[in-house]
Amino acid sequence: MLEVPKRGFEKAEYERRLGKIQKLMFDEQMDAILLTTQVDIEYYTGFKTQFFESPTRPWFVLIPLDEKPKAIIPVIGESGMRDTWVEDIQTWTSPNPEDEGISLLTLNIKALMKRFKTLGIPQGHESNLRMPLGDYNKLISNLDGINIKDATKILRYVRYVKSPAEIEKIKYICDVASQGFEDLPSLLKVGESERANCQRFKNHLLSLGVDDFPYLISGSGQGGYGSIIMGPSERILENGDIFIIDTGCVFDSYFCDFDRNYAFGYASDEAKKAYEVVFKATDAGFDACKVGNTTSDVFNAMNKVMQEGGALSNSVGRLGHGLGMQLTEWPSNTINDNTKLEEGVVITLEPGMEYLEGKEMVHEENVLITNNGPVWLSRRASPELPIIV
Amino acid sequence: MLEVPKRGFEKAEYERRLGKIQKLMFDEQMDAILLTTQVDIEYYTGFKTQFFESPTRPWFVLIPLDEKPKAIIPVIGESGMRDTWVEDIQTWTSPNPEDEGISLLTLNIKALMKRFKTLGIPQGHESNLRMPLGDYNKLISNLDGINIKDATKILRYVRYVKSPAEIEKIKYICDVASQGFEDLPSLLKVGESERANCQRFKNHLLSLGVDDFPYLISGSGQGGYGSIIMGPSERILENGDIFIIDTGCVFDSYFCDFDRNYAFGYASDEAKKAYEVVFKATDAGFDACKVGNTTSDVFNAMNKVMQEGGALSNSVGRLGHGLGMQLTEWPSNTINDNTKLEEGVVITLEPGMEYLEGKEMVHEENVLITNNGPVWLSRRASPELPIIV
Repeated sequence: MLEVPKRGFEKAEYERRLGKIQKLMFDEQMDAILLTTQVDIEYYTGFKTQFFESPTRPWFVLIPLDEKPKAIIPVIGESGMRDTWVEDIQTWTSPNPEDEGISLLTLNIKALMKRFKTLGIPQGHESNLRMPLGDYNKLISNLDGINIKDATKILRYVRYVKSPAEIEKIKYICDVASQGFEDLPSLLKVGESERANCQRFKNHLLSLGVDDFPYLISGSGQGGYGSIIMGPSERILENGDIFIIDTGCVFDSYFCDFDRNYAFGYASDEAKKAYEVVFKATDAGFDACKVGNTTSDVFNAMNKVMQEGGALSNSVGRLGHGLGMQLTEWPSNTINDNTKLEEGVVITLEPGMEYLEGKEMVHEENVLITNNGPVWLSRRASPELPIIV
Repeated sequence: MLEVPKRGFEKAEYERRLGKIQKLMFDEQMDAILLTTQVDIEYYTGFKTQFFESPTRPWFVLIPLDEKPKAIIPVIGESGMRDTWVEDIQTWTSPNPEDEGISLLTLNIKALMKRFKTLGIPQGHESNLRMPLGDYNKLISNLDGINIKDATKILRYVRYVKSPAEIEKIKYICDVASQGFEDLPSLLKVGESERANCQRFKNHLLSLGVDDFPYLISGSGQGGYGSIIMGPSERILENGDIFIIDTGCVFDSYFCDFDRNYAFGYASDEAKKAYEVVFKATDAGFDACKVGNTTSDVFNAMNKVMQEGGALSNSVGRLGHGLGMQLTEWPSNTINDNTKLEEGVVITLEPGMEYLEGKEMVHEENVLITNNGPVWLSRRASPELPIIV
């Protein structure tokens, strides 16, 4: 396995991110951007906490056009934020339903509206506002005279291209999960539930160096599975089953996202064939992962192989996506996404097809785009459906 | 340890939940409520997936005034939703940035606006809209002529009072985590990092029967820790440290949420005293956990003990909160929350105090409210600060 990367980032990484977004903010004529989600806030500040699991308190970070980020946060986070590169930290005692930070946030936003009188807020697809809607409406009415503009496109673009330090973390978690999957056949047991098998896998992943597994699902069924987003269930695995585990494991806030398929005892010709088709589709997608090509080129390369391989349909709606601090990030590999691939982009290749009614076969690998061609980040799966006897 | 409860719920549980919210909807004159979050959707439908980890696709469930819930969801979730008690399942192929379910959702909402022409949407504190703001604005403009009303209060009230089947799950996860904490002293090692120690704890929790640990933080420092929401860090534990782990472990979608404190080698009199104070404050809070009392009575009982015990301040902003399908739920134990305690309510008692500048001591236990008085769900912590030598 690869060496464990250094945790955290140098200050220069945050300076680089800030510089990139500020340049785009100037082009878009925004004086500031308001961030509310765990990932956006961590990306620009380095503030790393699991505390967003509690929905009680909102957290606000403002990215000014020409200053460092400002944190407007509950007191409970103050000491943690002091350990980041952020200097301007303003707090309120929370929970306080009368004024959950809104008046303090309003003051700070107004003070930044110098040039364009415009505040950027993420509003587009895959974005989320992590504060109560009522408080948001109150904030907007406080900001009378200030334009609100969608900041989704520039925020997602900055995160789209990964730095070498980010790539090192993704590469590492992909390698650790790959090792886990390579060890998995000796851990899997028929006669036990999906859940019991997945719990053993989790224990093994922890021992290999995974921080966490925010996403670890499984599916199974005689001759094939029908869903790749539910489970692990209490269903008992038996011979004749096809079994999938798909996991987003995390190292230092960066995800891998890929799956592996296994058959128990034996597999039908249809299942073996479907596995080969999605495996070959992945190869075709990989070959299309060139700088200058688009996500739609990657989609078309994979889709062609699956159409020729007899795919009935695909319920996933896309054949892979961006990968980084979230299990799935913009963009999507779809027929009309058309996002240009660039050096430093990490995507998943995720061809999936229904090969019999109600039976799906989904394969997934993680790939880095470079000027010298694509690089596998996950260790390539077996070219044939592994049969565990 | 307790016997493992049956997973999932009987259909009657969902019928009961639906009946309760529909009665309140009638009082509030709402024709339907729109749900978008993982927890709200699972609570009313039984649709259990980790897939909300991906921000790409929104999920919609409508609770009509006099019908069963309707699911308007991406195709990828259809087979999973078919396994729930929901019958009306409408899908669209997602991702589709042109129309991410909004036209289908609009049609369904309009068809339900029969009596009051009013749609309930959660907008209050601790609520969150899990769909892009831009699409929300599009939806609202599609619903011209329909009133939008905040549904937070009635939604949180229904979830506030737990059924026997819910209580059984919370009781179980509290018991499993209690066992984990009781075993922890033999797993902790000075000379290793917070993270390495926490990872051993995670492995042990999995082996005891925990499904997952969406929240597992630690804090440490010579003579005391300064934060309870960051970490686990790479800091190496050493003699003279006070160490805290706070965890929200999950069994079948239900959380425990409590912490334990440990000293390594020795502890100062101040730290020992602070531990005793928060321990006694917890007892005082427990005694106040009577049906008819309020969360503010519980707060005052705990706060009095801490004030008399020399507390400098409290950065948490409250002394406990509701507990169930989220790590923290409404209400909060604060001076002016004033929520009446009822039979079937589960709350945490979480007295915390700064006892030296920058040094906090936070204790936490989980309690069930019954007509016969409070019941500890977590096994009571040691009355004295455990010193690991």
